[in-house]
Parts: sequence; C-alpha cells; structure tokens
Amino acid sequence: MSKFLSEKLSSLKAYEPGEQPQDKKYIKLNTNESPYPTSDGVIKAINEQKIKDLRLYSDPECKLLKSKLAEVYDTIPNKIFVGNGSDEILNFAFMAYGQKGVAFADITYGFYSVFADLYGLDSQIIPLKEDFSLDVDGFLGLNKLIVIANPNAPTGKEIPLDDVERILKSNANSVVVIDEAYVDFGGNSCAKLTEKYDNLLCVQTFSKSRSMAGARLGFAIGNSEIIKDLEKIKYSTNPYNINSLTQIAGYSALVDNDYYLNNAKNIIKTREITTNKLRELGFTVLDSKANFIFAKSDKIDGKELYLKLKENGVLVRHFTKDRISKFVRITIGSEEEMQIFIEKVTKILGELE
Amino acid sequence: MSKFLSEKLSSLKAYEPGEQPQDKKYIKLNTNESPYPTSDGVIKAINEQKIKDLRLYSDPECKLLKSKLAEVYDTIPNKIFVGNGSDEILNFAFMAYGQKGVAFADITYGFYSVFADLYGLDSQIIPLKEDFSLDVDGFLGLNKLIVIANPNAPTGKEIPLDDVERILKSNANSVVVIDEAYVDFGGNSCAKLTEKYDNLLCVQTFSKSRSMAGARLGFAIGNSEIIKDLEKIKYSTNPYNINSLTQIAGYSALVDNDYYLNNAKNIIKTREITTNKLRELGFTVLDSKANFIFAKSDKIDGKELYLKLKENGVLVRHFTKDRISKFVRITIGSEEEMQIFIEKVTKILGELE
Repeated sequence: MSKFLSEKLSSLKAYEPGEQPQDKKYIKLNTNESPYPTSDGVIKAINEQKIKDLRLYSDPECKLLKSKLAEVYDTIPNKIFVGNGSDEILNFAFMAYGQKGVAFADITYGFYSVFADLYGLDSQIIPLKEDFSLDVDGFLGLNKLIVIANPNAPTGKEIPLDDVERILKSNANSVVVIDEAYVDFGGNSCAKLTEKYDNLLCVQTFSKSRSMAGARLGFAIGNSEIIKDLEKIKYSTNPYNINSLTQIAGYSALVDNDYYLNNAKNIIKTREITTNKLRELGFTVLDSKANFIFAKSDKIDGKELYLKLKENGVLVRHFTKDRISKFVRITIGSEEEMQIFIEKVTKILGELE
Repeated sequence: MSKFLSEKLSSLKAYEPGEQPQDKKYIKLNTNESPYPTSDGVIKAINEQKIKDLRLYSDPECKLLKSKLAEVYDTIPNKIFVGNGSDEILNFAFMAYGQKGVAFADITYGFYSVFADLYGLDSQIIPLKEDFSLDVDGFLGLNKLIVIANPNAPTGKEIPLDDVERILKSNANSVVVIDEAYVDFGGNSCAKLTEKYDNLLCVQTFSKSRSMAGARLGFAIGNSEIIKDLEKIKYSTNPYNINSLTQIAGYSALVDNDYYLNNAKNIIKTREITTNKLRELGFTVLDSKANFIFAKSDKIDGKELYLKLKENGVLVRHFTKDRISKFVRITIGSEEEMQIFIEKVTKILGELE
C-alpha cells in the first residue's frame, strides 16, 4: 500500500475470489462455473472479421445485446442494463442507492459487505434463521437499500416470490436488489415483478447457466428510471464497459438459449443425484436451487474436507466464517466429475475410520 | 432518473463519448481508433478452444498478460496494473488519490472532470497557455493529485520528459498520473521514470496504437506500492475486470509488437501529410504527437465544418467548449481515408466562396 492512498481505502478489506491454483489440473468445483462449453453459435459468431474489428470501440449502448435480452425476457431495452459481470452492476447499485444504509444477510455473497465498506455505508446484517433460510420479516419496513441473493449463496436456498413481494411492498421508498445469479437452476425469477414495483432491481449473469464466466457479462432488469441511474454511473466511470466480443458472445448465447436451458436441466439432475449420494454418506445437504450444494458431515470438519479433497485433486470452496465453517460449497460439475467427487469423499471418510 | 438515486449522483454530469451513428457508413475519424486491424497472432490466438473455455472465469491476476507487458516494457509484473480500458485505471486513480484535490488542464481529456465530480473532489483547473501548450509551472508544488495527458488530447501537444520530472519532484507528496494513451505516435514515455519516482503512475492503452479499442484493455506502470493500491480497489469492485479473450488478445498483440510499431509509423507519416495539406488549405494545425490532429480555419467555424463533413460522409469530432470551438479534432485514418477527407474539406471550402 502506498503512502498516498486515501484513508478510507487504506482500511478497506477487499473481496477474495475463489482460488485458481496453477500447480496441477484439478476437478474444479469451487467457483460455480458451468461444466459445459459455450454453444456453437457463440463459437461461430466470434469470427476473424469480428476480431479484426476490435480496432473499433465497442457499442457503448450495447443495442443489439439489449434488444435480444428484451426479446428473451419479454421486456423492453430501456428496462435493461448490462454490466462487466454482475459484480459491476451490484457495485453501481451500492454506489447509487446506499445513502440511507444497506441491509443484507449474514451468510450471503461476500461481496456485499465489501461494497458497503467501499462506500462507507451503514450496514444492517440480518442473520439467516437457524435452518439457513432468509429471515424475511427482518427485511420488512427498513426503507434502506436491500440486497438479497435468491437463490442465496453459499446456501443455495430460495425464498418464494411472495416473500420478495412482501419485502418490495414494505420498502417502497428504497431499492431492493434481488441478485439472481443462480436463478436458472430451478429458481423463480422476480424479473416480471419489475412491471409492478418501481423499486426492484433484478440482477442476473451469463457466468453460470450460460457458460460465460470468462466473458464477464451481467445484466439487470428494472424500472426504466432505475436503469437510467445505472447508465449514468456507467457513463461517469467506464462508458465502454462491455467489450465487443463479449457483446457478440452474449447475443449469440441468447440465440442458442435452448442449449443453455438444457444444460441447466442436466446440472439440476446431477445436483439431485449428488445430494442424495452425499446424504447416503451421512452428510447434511441444504436443499439447493443453485448450481452448487452446501454440505457438512459430522465426521469431518469443513476445512479438513476441503484440504483432503484438494490433495485428491478436487477443489471445493470452504468459508472460515464461524456459522458455516463446518460446511463446504460444492459446484455441480459434469456427471463424471461428480462421480469422481463422490468416490473421493467416500475414500476420505473411509480413511477416517 | 429515479427518486431513489443519491443526491450526489443526481447532480452529476456524465461523460459523452464520440458519436457512433448507425444511419450510414462514415469514414470514421472521430474517436481516435486505428485504421489497421488487429494482428494475425491475435486472430489465431482467439481459437475455438479459447471460446469454449469462456465457461471458466478469467485469471483475476492476469499473470500471462502482465508478464508479457513486463518483458516488453522492461519492468517487473509487480509494477504493472491492467484495467478494463485505461478509463478504469483513471477512475481508480481519482478514487484513490484525490482526497487533497486534483489538478488538470482546462483543455484535456473530458473524463477527468467527470471523475473529479464523481468523487466530489476539489478541482484546480490550470489553463493551457495561449498556444495550447501545458502551463508546466502551474503544476509545480501543488501536492494534490495531478493528471496530465501527454501527448494531450484533443490538442496532440506533448511536454518533454524534463517537464514531467520537474512536476514529479515538486509534488513528491502526491500522485502524478501521466495519461499516455497517445504516446506511441512519436511521443516520449515516462514509464522508465517510475524507477526513480514513487509518485508516478504512467497509464497507457491498447485502444489506439494496438488496434484494440473494442477489446477494452489499458495498463499502468508505477511503483509496486501504487500498483498494490490499484489492485486493492479492483478486488473491492470487480476482481475479474478483464475477460479471458481480451487477456489473450493483449498477450498476442505484445508478441506481434513489431506489426503495431510499424502501423504507428504509417500513421505518423499520414499525419504529417494530412497536416501539410490542411496547412496548404489555410488551416492552423497544432503540432501533433498523437494519432489525431487539431485544426481550425478562419473560413469556417468548427461546428459548421464538422456538420458539413458529416453530410459528406466523414465523421470528425467537435467540442463546444469556448476556447476550442473553432477547431475540429481529426483522427488519422488510412492514407486513402485521409485523401478523401482532404478532398471533402477542399470541396466544402470551395463551396463557401
């Protein structure tokens, strides 16, 4: 850290993304990536001419991509914002709407607290209930920025849209961000509720169900005035936030939507098989609506299981936070990868006896 | 704008990028893009496997790209930061180092004042001299954040490295950002001075000389402690800021560095030809070290020339600011494009008589 850095930033603690070790090939079940490649349409669309045309700036308005998103999500382009990953959109929402404070769960996406600290926001942390479900009543009538991951991470648990509506109604004077990064794996999207509530921002991403984590593309659906706010922040920080090839890849992925919906179905199937097998091995596994599961065993601590799996060539994610330190979060990979995962877990548990 | 937006952001005026009209094909000399396509190595490197692998997150540490940059710029990876365009790097610098205020020229890259307003910084505007050269003495002993485009935009004028050093020495307690977006067109880079001055941040981009405006890739060289500051902000806002394909394209462009250096030479040659022809037509043309020229004619106002050129299928950029409203900024395109440009200007001037 330099001596020049502002005091506020000096004391900030940054987000720590999941590890990306380069020492050997792992079965990577630690950052909720898709096991399936991008679709043929994406591969074909990024052709020689498009690469040559990188010499030109990307479209700052992302017109084609937005119009295709509008078509697929049955809305209009003016109600859509696209970001350099959904992290950028969440960042903008904290910047724009946190002035009266922000509320989020104790166990949720770790970046929320980083954004809150970055902007010096007053944070109200609302603990999940004993069973790790969201304390919906705790979010009522706060009238500050509310940020909820639904399904939640790393628990995978979902709240029904009725609860989302209760929260929206009782916080009519503040923005409610529903982070739906994992919604395509069996969850229910609140996107349609943006027609009814002017304080809702529904945030999604191409990183998980659309196999494009490396392309960095998130989008949000909301009231057109909220979208205007986000556009203003974009034009005040980085107008060309989405590069050309990502815009093309995003558009083409939407054209190939059926391929990705089918992949999501496969992941759900593999998730249920893996959940059952872990339960047979004595694990507690939370009911997940995401492309990962959150599991613990009485026989082995979360950190130990994580380390032993890593030794065995399988990466999962462990969080040190007290309340969840017994758990590991396991991304659902391909059927073959999950078979190996179950074999390795069985072996590790066997060696304990 | 929504009723929820914070007061601070409500009053902000965003940056306006150059127009990207879709109504017809223009000769595009308005956003300082390169007329030359990306190199063969870039085209080959973005292959089918790399597109399939978009399913995986990009490397947040950008290790390969940084090590190649370090090689080409004769430094070490720890002294390099890479951003989603140089705009992101400038944004971070304003966020990190503006707490005691910021100083920049009256006529320079329009984004500086937007960043200053975004962070509520106290801005000291230091007018360029009568001949549009930088008032170097005005920047001495300020000990606040200093941001200088060198060569400057939209004037194209350069200050020598001796002057950069004078500014660095007399502002030892604050960061000096030298924005070298256009340095590869005959300018002198201060990158080496980062070995001597811990308060220097040298910012460059792949958007101009390396034909990658659409890929969004900027980089900065500075003292490793300053780089750590920027990394911290990145990990507090968007850890995966650079998508995979852009990292690959950037790496490959550096492998093909000679191709881009040769393109820059051609652009310099075309710039000198175009400058001479405009002067023959009675224009005042500032001496440019960039891939654009800044020119005015007593016969026609800047705005009128811009509009007439647009009617004639040629886009240039006009700024409404009083001091420069008589000028237009003309990006140097290919030799053929500049021949057409000169023909159109000649025709427009002829019609005035």
